[in-house]
Amino acid sequence: MIKTAVLGYGTVGSGVVELLKKNKRLFTDKAGEEIQVKYILDIRDFPEDPNRDKIVHDFDVILHDPEITIIAETIGGKTFAYEYTKKALAAGKNVVTSNKELVAAKAPELLQLAKENGVKYLFEASVGGGIPIIRPLLHCLAANDLNKIIGILNGTTNYILTKMIKENMDFSVALKQAQQLGYAEANPAADVEGHDTCRKICILASMAFGKHIYPENVYTKGIQDLTLEDVSKAAQAGLVIKLLGYAEKTTDGSVKIFVSPCAIRTDHPLANIEDVFNGITVTGNATGDVTFYGKGAGKFPTASAVGADIIHCTTPADVGKILWQDSDNSFVKSFQDLQFTYLTGTEIPVIE
Amino acid sequence: MIKTAVLGYGTVGSGVVELLKKNKRLFTDKAGEEIQVKYILDIRDFPEDPNRDKIVHDFDVILHDPEITIIAETIGGKTFAYEYTKKALAAGKNVVTSNKELVAAKAPELLQLAKENGVKYLFEASVGGGIPIIRPLLHCLAANDLNKIIGILNGTTNYILTKMIKENMDFSVALKQAQQLGYAEANPAADVEGHDTCRKICILASMAFGKHIYPENVYTKGIQDLTLEDVSKAAQAGLVIKLLGYAEKTTDGSVKIFVSPCAIRTDHPLANIEDVFNGITVTGNATGDVTFYGKGAGKFPTASAVGADIIHCTTPADVGKILWQDSDNSFVKSFQDLQFTYLTGTEIPVIE
Repeated sequence: MIKTAVLGYGTVGSGVVELLKKNKRLFTDKAGEEIQVKYILDIRDFPEDPNRDKIVHDFDVILHDPEITIIAETIGGKTFAYEYTKKALAAGKNVVTSNKELVAAKAPELLQLAKENGVKYLFEASVGGGIPIIRPLLHCLAANDLNKIIGILNGTTNYILTKMIKENMDFSVALKQAQQLGYAEANPAADVEGHDTCRKICILASMAFGKHIYPENVYTKGIQDLTLEDVSKAAQAGLVIKLLGYAEKTTDGSVKIFVSPCAIRTDHPLANIEDVFNGITVTGNATGDVTFYGKGAGKFPTASAVGADIIHCTTPADVGKILWQDSDNSFVKSFQDLQFTYLTGTEIPVIE
Repeated sequence: MIKTAVLGYGTVGSGVVELLKKNKRLFTDKAGEEIQVKYILDIRDFPEDPNRDKIVHDFDVILHDPEITIIAETIGGKTFAYEYTKKALAAGKNVVTSNKELVAAKAPELLQLAKENGVKYLFEASVGGGIPIIRPLLHCLAANDLNKIIGILNGTTNYILTKMIKENMDFSVALKQAQQLGYAEANPAADVEGHDTCRKICILASMAFGKHIYPENVYTKGIQDLTLEDVSKAAQAGLVIKLLGYAEKTTDGSVKIFVSPCAIRTDHPLANIEDVFNGITVTGNATGDVTFYGKGAGKFPTASAVGADIIHCTTPADVGKILWQDSDNSFVKSFQDLQFTYLTGTEIPVIE
C-alpha cells in the first residue's frame, strides 16, 4: 500500500482524490500496489465531504508520517506551497504538483533539493493540464535539438478570444461570460494579462533549452487592450489573433521569448484551437513540428496529469515491465456486428 | 562510452546513424556518456559511405560483442528482424525498433523475453514516426481509463486522400504522384490497402486496453476503391473522408476495432491533418480528448523516435535527475530588440 497526501482541497486537489478513487484498479495495476490518500491538507473543514476524516490542518502531521512517500501539492502560489515542498523533499518524500507559479519561480532549487534527497519533483500538470507535454519534451523528443516552442497555454484567454473572433463579442462582455461559466476567476488578471501564459512558456523553454528562464525576465502582454477592430484587421489579412507564449533559440545562443497577442495564418496548427483548449507546437531539428492539443485546464484533466506523476513516483524503472498481456482476441468485435451510420450512397462509415 | 549497433542501413537506419552524429553532444548530455555506433548490419556494402568501416554482414559479430548494449532494429518485416531481436534480447541487449509489423505480430513474446533478461524492448518509432505517442499513452495518460483511439496513421494514404479531396485528383493519379515523390513505395499495397494502419492501431489499442490485438483479427479496408464520387458525397454532407484506424472499448468489455475510410466532420480534430502528416486522438476518462500530430514517417522524424528510445535505454531511472540549470537569464533577448512584421495598423506581431 502506497500512502499519499494531497495538499489543498480545491478544484485540482479534490480532482486528484476523486480520480484516485474512480480509477483505483488502474492505479493499482500501474503502480503495482494500491495507492491510498491518507491525508488532505486544507485550512478549511469539509464536514459534509466523504473524505472529511482525512482532512488535516497541520502540515507537520504529513511531514512526520513515515508512511507518506508521495505528496501532491495543489495549493498554488509561492508561499505555503514553497515551504511545504521544500520540507517534503528534504524529508525524502516525492512531490508532484500542478503549481506552475512555483515551478516557474523555483524549479532549479527544488530539483536540486530532490536530487540531493533521492526523490522526484514532477510537474506534468503545471503546463497544458491534461495534455502530455512535460514528459514528451524531456523524453520522447530527447533526441532532438529543440529550436522553438509556440503555445496557446491559457484556456481563459483563448475562450475570450474565440468569442471575440467568432461572435464579434467585446472583450469585456466575453470576459464576463467566461467568469459566469467558471472559466475565468473573479480577479482575472493572472490569465488576462498573460502572466499565467508567461509562467508556462518559461517552464517549457527552460526544459527545451536547458537553462532556467524566470518569468520576470520575459516581456508579457495580455489581451486586455485587444479590440474588435484588431480582430477585424487580422481577419482582413487572412490571419487570426491568439495569445501566444513564444520561445525560440537563436543561432547566437540567445533566446527570443515573449508573451503577446499574435496574428497567425488560419492554416497554422494552432489557429483552429478554440474555446478553453490549449495547443503547443514544438519544433525539433529531427522531428520537425509536433503539435499537442487538448483540455489545458479543469478538474479532471489536471488531475489526470497529477495522477500520471504519482504513478511515475511509484515506478522508478520500467526495465522489462510487461505492458500488456497476450490474448486470444475473443473480445474483438466482428466488423459485421458493428453498427454505423453510412455516408449516403456509400459504404463509408460516418464517425462522430 | 555506450556502444550500439544499427540493424539495416536503409532510410531509417541511416537516419539513426546520422542523427547520433548530428546531435552528438545532446545525446551525450542526455545519456551521461557518449553513444557510439560500432556496427551497422546490412547485406549490402556501401563503399562510398563515410560509415563503410562499420558495416558488417554477420549478425553474430554484434551478438557476441559484449560491448554492444543497445541494438536499433530498423530492418522491418518479421523474418530476420524477429530472429535477431530474439537473440539480442536473450543475450541481455536492449532493443529499440521502428518495426511496426514485428511489434504488432510479436510484442507479447518479445516483451516477455526482454523482462526475463532484464532489458528493454522499446518501439516509440513504430507508430506515428516523430510524433510522441507510445510513451505518452503508457506514462503521461497512465491515470486515465482510455476508452478510444482514432488515428490517421499512414502518411502515404493521407497524401493521396488530400490530393483527391483538394485537387479532385483520381486515386490512381494521386498514387502515381505519391510514388514519384517517394511517399509511396513501388508496391504500395501495405499502405494503400490499410495493412500499415492496421498494425499501428493494433499496437496503440493493445497498449491502451492491456491485451494484445493481432492484425489478422481486425477488419481492414484500404482506400484503393475510393472514388471521386465518394469524396464529393462527403463534401456535400459537410464531411471529409480519412483513412482511420479506430479502436474503442465497449461497456461489455469487448473492443470495436477496424481500419476503413471514414467520413468525419470538418471540425473534427483529425479533419485538417493533411498530406503526409499523421494525427492521433486519444480519449481518456479524466483528460477527455488529447490530439497529437506531426510527421508520421520519414528519415529524421522516425530516427528521432528511435533516438529517444536509445537514450531511454541508457537511463533506467530519473530520480532526482537535474533537468536544467539555473541561470542569470542574460541570454534572454530584450523584447525591444526583436524584429517583427506587425499586423497593419496595430502593434500585434505576425508569427509565421
